[in-house]
Amino acid sequence: MKDIQNRRDFRQVPIQKAGVKNLQYPLDVLDRENKVQHTVGNVSMYVDLPHHFKGTHMSRFLELLNEHRGKISLLNIGVILKAMVSRFDSTTAHLEMRFPYFVEKSAPVSQAKSLMNYQCAFLATYSRKRRREPLDLIVEVMVPVSTLCPCSKAISKQGAHNQRSWISIQIRSRELVWIEELIAIAEAEASSGLFALLKREDEKYVTEQAYARPRFAEDVARAIARKLKKDPRITWFQVASENLESIHNHNAYALVTSNGLQEKSQR
Amino acid sequence: MKDIQNRRDFRQVPIQKAGVKNLQYPLDVLDRENKVQHTVGNVSMYVDLPHHFKGTHMSRFLELLNEHRGKISLLNIGVILKAMVSRFDSTTAHLEMRFPYFVEKSAPVSQAKSLMNYQCAFLATYSRKRRREPLDLIVEVMVPVSTLCPCSKAISKQGAHNQRSWISIQIRSRELVWIEELIAIAEAEASSGLFALLKREDEKYVTEQAYARPRFAEDVARAIARKLKKDPRITWFQVASENLESIHNHNAYALVTSNGLQEKSQR
Amino acid sequence: MKDIQNRRDFRQVPIQKAGVKNLQYPLDVLDRENKVQHTVGNVSMYVDLPHHFKGTHMSRFLELLNEHRGKISLLNIGVILKAMVSRFDSTTAHLEMRFPYFVEKSAPVSQAKSLMNYQCAFLATYSRKRRREPLDLIVEVMVPVSTLCPCSKAISKQGAHNQRSWISIQIRSRELVWIEELIAIAEAEASSGLFALLKREDEKYVTEQAYARPRFAEDVARAIARKLKKDPRITWFQVASENLESIHNHNAYALVTSNGLQEKSQR
Amino acid sequence: MKDIQNRRDFRQVPIQKAGVKNLQYPLDVLDRENKVQHTVGNVSMYVDLPHHFKGTHMSRFLELLNEHRGKISLLNIGVILKAMVSRFDSTTAHLEMRFPYFVEKSAPVSQAKSLMNYQCAFLATYSRKRRREPLDLIVEVMVPVSTLCPCSKAISKQGAHNQRSWISIQIRSRELVWIEELIAIAEAEASSGLFALLKREDEKYVTEQAYARPRFAEDVARAIARKLKKDPRITWFQVASENLESIHNHNAYALVTSNGLQEKSQR
Repeated sequence: MKDIQNRRDFRQVPIQKAGVKNLQYPLDVLDRENKVQHTVGNVSMYVDLPHHFKGTHMSRFLELLNEHRGKISLLNIGVILKAMVSRFDSTTAHLEMRFPYFVEKSAPVSQAKSLMNYQCAFLATYSRKRRREPLDLIVEVMVPVSTLCPCSKAISKQGAHNQRSWISIQIRSRELVWIEELIAIAEAEASSGLFALLKREDEKYVTEQAYARPRFAEDVARAIARKLKKDPRITWFQVASENLESIHNHNAYALVTSNGLQEKSQR
Repeated sequence: MKDIQNRRDFRQVPIQKAGVKNLQYPLDVLDRENKVQHTVGNVSMYVDLPHHFKGTHMSRFLELLNEHRGKISLLNIGVILKAMVSRFDSTTAHLEMRFPYFVEKSAPVSQAKSLMNYQCAFLATYSRKRRREPLDLIVEVMVPVSTLCPCSKAISKQGAHNQRSWISIQIRSRELVWIEELIAIAEAEASSGLFALLKREDEKYVTEQAYARPRFAEDVARAIARKLKKDPRITWFQVASENLESIHNHNAYALVTSNGLQEKSQR
Repeated sequence: MKDIQNRRDFRQVPIQKAGVKNLQYPLDVLDRENKVQHTVGNVSMYVDLPHHFKGTHMSRFLELLNEHRGKISLLNIGVILKAMVSRFDSTTAHLEMRFPYFVEKSAPVSQAKSLMNYQCAFLATYSRKRRREPLDLIVEVMVPVSTLCPCSKAISKQGAHNQRSWISIQIRSRELVWIEELIAIAEAEASSGLFALLKREDEKYVTEQAYARPRFAEDVARAIARKLKKDPRITWFQVASENLESIHNHNAYALVTSNGLQEKSQR
Repeated sequence: MKDIQNRRDFRQVPIQKAGVKNLQYPLDVLDRENKVQHTVGNVSMYVDLPHHFKGTHMSRFLELLNEHRGKISLLNIGVILKAMVSRFDSTTAHLEMRFPYFVEKSAPVSQAKSLMNYQCAFLATYSRKRRREPLDLIVEVMVPVSTLCPCSKAISKQGAHNQRSWISIQIRSRELVWIEELIAIAEAEASSGLFALLKREDEKYVTEQAYARPRFAEDVARAIARKLKKDPRITWFQVASENLESIHNHNAYALVTSNGLQEKSQR
């Protein structure tokens, strides 16, 4: 049977990424409390394709994924990527996994337990060109929080507009930073964290806490950036804070990156 | 050339809806202020297919749409639907159009003008079986508003959680009810309406107004239902209120329909 | 502490549905092969609220869900709904769960195994008014398949346009119908089923099979409707077929319901 | 009234982007045929915020947008961005607009006219640091096309799987490149372009043309990259091709950038 993909290509155009996108797959993610957590991920896998090959054998991505079924976690992302460059005879390989992650939280007063969901991602690349550190891994966490507007509080006789906000943190690190640690940093710098289950005494606490801690999107992004900068394990980061404004139908947004901080300190 | 669609089908299965879905198309919508408003819609068109025909000639939907290009508004939905049943020789025809709609609003204190966007829809059906009133039209408006939690306000020393909410209103009516009228009803029953542009004096006003008018999702749905019920033009309605809770990562929801109200009054 | 929700309401407006929407939660779904399958669901829970109560205690939905954590499957949906009407003192309760579901499939020639994902839902309602059968359950399955256009094949010298399509089946039944059974019916009536992993010999088989079995969206909906109608366990159904047309940027759509079939047979 | 945003911040953290996101707004886009086209955009506007300011006055973005209402097109993006850096006293400004764009196309045989929709974007940045060329503009076009699999055609006795695909092109250029030109390049390199309206003779033509021009996602990306590289107006580009595979439930993907091409030629 003909192998069209394997034919020679003469167009002199190398392909940076060729592969499969938007594949749903069951994942097992490391969990600080329970060792492993079953979830469902959206997976993309790409390799580079040298200019002289016509196409990629896409079925090999699925074979590889199936070989690691039930063992796909942060611990063996490097192994999977290495198998990708080897099996495709490529220079670089990319593996992206996006998945909901659950953490059991206790309500602040009643201590009632409930599960909060956080959208997370592992964005990993392996390159043979980076001999000493071929693996590059970005961990991403989206943390829904509550923010209360400092301006609205300062100028109004009573109350202040507040809203659900999304904090997105992306990091590169020297050693493992738990998803739970990033969530804790994000929630500590918002006006309040969110909970799936709040009894009335908790709702009072959360409302008063948010009123006592007004934060602009800019404040949230800055405060988290400062904490991430101080963590010796973290080598790069990007923080975005996005408010689903309760007085507007558009969102307020602020972004800080570690690159931007370095520029600052050089001035 | 063979006409496969026109062949006889022997499976004895009539098709309720056959047609085209998710078609983007420029629309012209009637506007109370400016007569007509240019927008972009998502359009679906279906007819019923008698059991003895194999398929629908889908290209005819597009021909029909093109014939009415630049004149697709509430005024001629009936004309388009009638042309659909006639051209497809069908008993019923369905036309659904979803589109963003803009209204110029003035901020409450500064009177600064800005454009607010509302997601609207016309859901229309024409049936030859309903001899006297073949056209059935539902107008739908999604109104983003602000709601402030009555419970949170009552139990907290200061502040109250509030959030962006969506109010969805669907109506059938004897005569034209402007989209602008439905928006006005929704905004009047929320804790506050939203604005694209608010100066500081407006933000103070909106914050204090919302604090003075706490509303559960249930309150909003009920109050709007009462207003719609009193309008002699409106013959059927459904109201839903959905809060993007600022203390939870899930939404609070309440739904009232005119059918439910009738059940009530019969008890 | 004040209980605002529990206050009397005087507006005489009963609420059909009040509750929580769009809650992410880990689910355990019955699986014909492996007994149980871990997945992640999007959950909504509503009860009706009599006209004389001001609000719903939304936290109770979460308490209930947490009590059944790890045991939320088709088998105890009735138990959860019964607990809802009892704990909220309501007449009706609604529980909706949408989730990805995985089935291991073997490629048609190589027999290579891979996981296919299907979007499924349980839409359940419990009503005290329906004394003898208080539980009403709809099972929904979305099956991605391939369809090849009969018209394109008939009029073209070579080839025929084909595309990814979605078949949506909703059923009510007297006894358990496995999700796997509905998937099998859908895939059998399409031009071909889909697979995550196909080797070259499988791709040849699937291509030739699809070319040998051209199907309009109308054909697919009709053929599935006939099969569902013959199944004595199934008491109601709705089938929709939607083609992501490879020659258009809009979709072709066909819908058949068991109600429509009854109308037919009465004529 | 207090101006909280204007207060001094002491955290030494500059913000790269602060502003408004996901704002719906009517846009007027330059159109090669009709001079201007009314559409509806999703707009985001950001400026950088020096470390010593606490917050951004978000209402100013809206004021600026309103001042240019009815005149927001490619021609005055530079003017709007310049006004942003000036009014916010910032170093950089970002303006992103995403919008559907319609082009009238004639079917290949019948010449029947219909409107095709393309999702487009302008991604513009203005920086005072880049003295000579402060404006950086990326034009993005998403072109839905049809691709037919070369492997499937080569190994199968009859037919070949084909599907709807999305080609995404992003370019930077020395002078105006029409959206229509980018669409034409994309459609010429796919197995076939798409049409809203095709009569039977057109469907035959399109089917046979696609069968005669099989293309992998890799082929499409490469061929477009070669054309863009030869255009002297274009200084940078990125091309991605994504197939909604009709035999899989995931997509096939290929990406080529002008940077990757330069690497190649240096080897």
